[in-house]
Amino acid sequence: MSSSFGTLFRATTFGESHGPAVGVVVDGCPSLVPLDVAEIQAELDRRRPGQSKLVTQRKESDTVEILSGVHDGVTLGTPIAMLVRNEDARSRDYEEMRTKYRPSHADFTYDQKYGVRAWSGGGRASARETVGRVAAGAIAQRLLRERWGVEIVAWVSHVQGVSSEVDPLTVTRANVDVNDVRCPDAGAATKMIELIEAVRKGGDSVGGVVCCVARGVPAGWGEPVFDKLEADLAKALISLPACKGFEVGSGFAGTLLTGTRHNDAFRSDDQKTAYTKTNYSGGIQGGISNGMPITLRAAFKPTATVMHEQETVTTELENTTISGRGRHDPCVLPRAVPIVEAMVALVLADHALRQDAMRGC
Amino acid sequence: MSSSFGTLFRATTFGESHGPAVGVVVDGCPSLVPLDVAEIQAELDRRRPGQSKLVTQRKESDTVEILSGVHDGVTLGTPIAMLVRNEDARSRDYEEMRTKYRPSHADFTYDQKYGVRAWSGGGRASARETVGRVAAGAIAQRLLRERWGVEIVAWVSHVQGVSSEVDPLTVTRANVDVNDVRCPDAGAATKMIELIEAVRKGGDSVGGVVCCVARGVPAGWGEPVFDKLEADLAKALISLPACKGFEVGSGFAGTLLTGTRHNDAFRSDDQKTAYTKTNYSGGIQGGISNGMPITLRAAFKPTATVMHEQETVTTELENTTISGRGRHDPCVLPRAVPIVEAMVALVLADHALRQDAMRGC
Amino acid sequence: MSSSFGTLFRATTFGESHGPAVGVVVDGCPSLVPLDVAEIQAELDRRRPGQSKLVTQRKESDTVEILSGVHDGVTLGTPIAMLVRNEDARSRDYEEMRTKYRPSHADFTYDQKYGVRAWSGGGRASARETVGRVAAGAIAQRLLRERWGVEIVAWVSHVQGVSSEVDPLTVTRANVDVNDVRCPDAGAATKMIELIEAVRKGGDSVGGVVCCVARGVPAGWGEPVFDKLEADLAKALISLPACKGFEVGSGFAGTLLTGTRHNDAFRSDDQKTAYTKTNYSGGIQGGISNGMPITLRAAFKPTATVMHEQETVTTELENTTISGRGRHDPCVLPRAVPIVEAMVALVLADHALRQDAMRGC
Amino acid sequence: MSSSFGTLFRATTFGESHGPAVGVVVDGCPSLVPLDVAEIQAELDRRRPGQSKLVTQRKESDTVEILSGVHDGVTLGTPIAMLVRNEDARSRDYEEMRTKYRPSHADFTYDQKYGVRAWSGGGRASARETVGRVAAGAIAQRLLRERWGVEIVAWVSHVQGVSSEVDPLTVTRANVDVNDVRCPDAGAATKMIELIEAVRKGGDSVGGVVCCVARGVPAGWGEPVFDKLEADLAKALISLPACKGFEVGSGFAGTLLTGTRHNDAFRSDDQKTAYTKTNYSGGIQGGISNGMPITLRAAFKPTATVMHEQETVTTELENTTISGRGRHDPCVLPRAVPIVEAMVALVLADHALRQDAMRGC
Repeated sequence: MSSSFGTLFRATTFGESHGPAVGVVVDGCPSLVPLDVAEIQAELDRRRPGQSKLVTQRKESDTVEILSGVHDGVTLGTPIAMLVRNEDARSRDYEEMRTKYRPSHADFTYDQKYGVRAWSGGGRASARETVGRVAAGAIAQRLLRERWGVEIVAWVSHVQGVSSEVDPLTVTRANVDVNDVRCPDAGAATKMIELIEAVRKGGDSVGGVVCCVARGVPAGWGEPVFDKLEADLAKALISLPACKGFEVGSGFAGTLLTGTRHNDAFRSDDQKTAYTKTNYSGGIQGGISNGMPITLRAAFKPTATVMHEQETVTTELENTTISGRGRHDPCVLPRAVPIVEAMVALVLADHALRQDAMRGC
Repeated sequence: MSSSFGTLFRATTFGESHGPAVGVVVDGCPSLVPLDVAEIQAELDRRRPGQSKLVTQRKESDTVEILSGVHDGVTLGTPIAMLVRNEDARSRDYEEMRTKYRPSHADFTYDQKYGVRAWSGGGRASARETVGRVAAGAIAQRLLRERWGVEIVAWVSHVQGVSSEVDPLTVTRANVDVNDVRCPDAGAATKMIELIEAVRKGGDSVGGVVCCVARGVPAGWGEPVFDKLEADLAKALISLPACKGFEVGSGFAGTLLTGTRHNDAFRSDDQKTAYTKTNYSGGIQGGISNGMPITLRAAFKPTATVMHEQETVTTELENTTISGRGRHDPCVLPRAVPIVEAMVALVLADHALRQDAMRGC
Repeated sequence: MSSSFGTLFRATTFGESHGPAVGVVVDGCPSLVPLDVAEIQAELDRRRPGQSKLVTQRKESDTVEILSGVHDGVTLGTPIAMLVRNEDARSRDYEEMRTKYRPSHADFTYDQKYGVRAWSGGGRASARETVGRVAAGAIAQRLLRERWGVEIVAWVSHVQGVSSEVDPLTVTRANVDVNDVRCPDAGAATKMIELIEAVRKGGDSVGGVVCCVARGVPAGWGEPVFDKLEADLAKALISLPACKGFEVGSGFAGTLLTGTRHNDAFRSDDQKTAYTKTNYSGGIQGGISNGMPITLRAAFKPTATVMHEQETVTTELENTTISGRGRHDPCVLPRAVPIVEAMVALVLADHALRQDAMRGC
Repeated sequence: MSSSFGTLFRATTFGESHGPAVGVVVDGCPSLVPLDVAEIQAELDRRRPGQSKLVTQRKESDTVEILSGVHDGVTLGTPIAMLVRNEDARSRDYEEMRTKYRPSHADFTYDQKYGVRAWSGGGRASARETVGRVAAGAIAQRLLRERWGVEIVAWVSHVQGVSSEVDPLTVTRANVDVNDVRCPDAGAATKMIELIEAVRKGGDSVGGVVCCVARGVPAGWGEPVFDKLEADLAKALISLPACKGFEVGSGFAGTLLTGTRHNDAFRSDDQKTAYTKTNYSGGIQGGISNGMPITLRAAFKPTATVMHEQETVTTELENTTISGRGRHDPCVLPRAVPIVEAMVALVLADHALRQDAMRGC
């Protein structure tokens, strides 16, 4: 009862990592949005395993099939179901998981919750579930671009201690995809890649931070009180595997300023368009977009799968150890970039439709 | 369409700051929970303005009336409506707001969204809306304590640059309420109080960080994928006025560790109860509680109301300045503590019921 | 968890019959809808007990107070909370209910579900809960009239065996309210009134049928599949106390025709406006309005409260009898008319907003 | 935004009649329910076209594939996605639909709502959408049988003017499936079959009534007020294609009785189990099940597809005629039986879980 996201533009994902398929049903996408399977595939390719040496070598073509909701190149307004078959499920690598809980994975908690789990490949807790999110997000991004000119760009800003400098006002997706680590600061990217390579050789893993900006969002999106725009964005990002922290605008650093410094002064330009001189608010005030760029940060912990022996317990709750095996991502950050963009797009598309409903035509 | 929170245990708040009343309807609370108006009042008193020199001096008794859903001291299973009349609304202090947008408040965005706003007192964007959250949270806390022995404790861990040391395993609400700033580290509390007094005299404001722990949560609460327990907690806290950042477990700091260091090794004790040696996961793995304490942090920006002249625009989008007037909180943190606890309780109560439904009786 | 209705235009009712108050929170009403407490009161007065000899003599002024969401005569877009205090609760009349279950009431099932019940006055199962529905419906009707020119008229078409002839294309609310039984066919109304008077003197009760038409609904409202417009209307009406049957368009009688007779032929008029020559579809095809009048019928069983001794069981499940006492409605139909209109309005307002969201601005 | 049904046990269907596939995602099914693809297939076979001469001759094997959520013969608690490929889509039969609206179909309203439609085969408005409902309902029925011993039986009680006599207390699914028309009264069944054959030869169609009983439902299911058990059942059935009327218990006929006759007297048996002497309430009082059999009736209009020339308009709103072509169901009733059972099962499974959540473990 948790595999759906959104109030009006709603994505429902399904599928286990080593089951027959993963996929998504998008319900509530308006009709007459131009849609091409190629643009969905392009986003999935950015998320795909095996795309570079920095990420897991699982071989999945991740070829998407659209089963419904699209006709003659446009959406019908009906549910859009999309399917990706699983291909390279090596269950033998996971045999030990059957009887032992991997530390900081979801094996233990799934067993506690359900009394059963698809032990092979992490089942539904695998990052493979995000295939459906990315496919749905590609549709949301097309809708946002077509109707409102919104563009969303995410990038890797930190890998462990390596930080970067990127201007959220100008960064493009082309800048981001120029290297394998998806950090548009070339100097920082080189260091990040070296770090990840070293960590992989050591059988360990690292985390980091993904930044995201949404430009072109008009003022007025977001609902006050519980469904504040930033609250739904927080839920969207923290719902991603391995995400442990979220910031909008000034975030934790903003707590170090005083109110007079932190307040974003309004100004009006020659065209009587309001803007703020600073953007500590991150484009959202009182839960509603104010027309400035929306700026977000998400912290991803180091991948739990490491190639070292670790203490754990068996399913019978006996103390034991487990050794790392199988393919793994030494750092999820590069693949997290399109996933973060997808989740931000799902939130914005949903709130765009909610605002249309509230404002009337 | 955003004033409801929760799937099964659902709170719907209403009310403007300077309107007749604020309140909440709680629908989905199970029957036969012992409930006394006094325990709801006690939580409201912790949130109330005017309780100390550190907070706004608006005079509100915040006396709550239960209108429905309770009979002979127990809940009926039907909606529990609770009402608090507004008493001390000084609209004259807000006259300037009618035609000017206060920086970093929601005046501008409400006008953009709705084409109208209750300009006096901030309307629905006022922190006064949280009266309903606290009243609902008091019921959720009673339910959680009665049925599962869960206890929730929040405290102020930072005010601007002043930090504190507090043990989440042992801190109690009595420790927290021992001083006006609600920081259980006495040395830090003294410095925080001095800082807030100084800031208030200077007509400025400061922000900080609230930490929260939930102890006694059994393994198995939380839904994987979108409604992960930490995702709903993130939404709950980021939905609070002025909250700009959220962390669960290791949060942003966890990105600086490697996987081998960050993983929480499982161990089993003499009673065959599983636990983890560390708790970087913050009590949640794969979106589901693992039985360890749930640990959270929320960043609150400095209050936007300051007693200085600031640049802004009029409702006609002419450049102008606005001067601070009226009563204000130089620091919202002490009053945020019961509000954070309430939101955490609403999330946990909802997921407790969802897990009952999923597991069956 | 059942006291809310609607996806975007959402009403949440609260209150027990003999508790302090009943009321409703309407969330999701667009801003800038002109709204006057008098028009809400007018609808409540049509539902009020004691308005004629045909209905219960409980004395309630049913004076409504708007607590939030309205400012200077227009809606703010924020939740509109409305409150009606209970005044004439004669619990002594209900003492026997404490330990005996009234036949065909909800006493037994509430106890089975909740393990407790507000035994006095029927608690939440009382028709008094519909106060909140009518108040919310008054707002929905204003919105529908202002924005789309929709008008909704319901009337009593049958009381037990007495039937009437009314033209759904022309009937007005003024026609309906011209007599106490709310049947615009004067001859039938006279017979209905005589029947109800006779039944009341005999301490018994009767049921009947309410018809409803919604004119001016544009084509395109309603969602295919599960949230078909007629499906949400069915739920809305069957959710009313004592309602046991629902029909749209030709209903059960339509099953006696063949397809060639039953199909509604499309025609186009001089202005190239499509219409259908017949309206067996009741204004809805495939779950979506087609621009023709929407026609509905709802069956209400005879009131369960009668002034005769009846067999029943005690709360200890011992066989016993119970005698009728207290005030009762010999026939709920006249008071059901504004309630039916309110429910139809809630469904239409919700689907109007959903269609705005889907179609974009 | 209308393709999902249920609060906790939630089915989301997708697919157009002549698109690649139809299917469903069931989210919220508890874990550890034994589940076999064969039992889902068995229900789909009862709904399948071409199963007898009485129904459409479209050739579809309707072979279902389970894509997720089931492992080693039990449910995992995660979403269960099920897929049926479309095979026999003869778009040429539908060419005329591209530019003309079929009377009493959804062609016109889909165009009005969406500005586009999958004109071939009726798109999403086709009865083919019910494949997903039946697959989801098969899982709901297994859950209901396993956990609570609930059994649901529907049958054809009327075809046009031909009525039958069936005892809802004893009728079994085997009795129903004994003939092609699914009416367990053999004499009536013969007449119904003759009628349908004659109607088919004449190129016309007929409607009728399906009755349904749910036995073994414990007291306490259903939520008062808006989500009354009968209200959700009404929505479930009226959401089916061609369904125009709904009754629970005494329905419209109950309006002809007085209250003293209609009330269901409670009695207690030797085991102190309460029951009612009559069951005009249809097993539900105040929206909550009372432990007696739940009895329902649904009216289905004659199929809109007939083999005669009919008046209609073009997509340019010019008057024209359209001639019947393609395969059609002269009477949907026999195939509606498993669909009605599926919808009733979806409602009951959802309310069963909701009651578990409310009551606690």
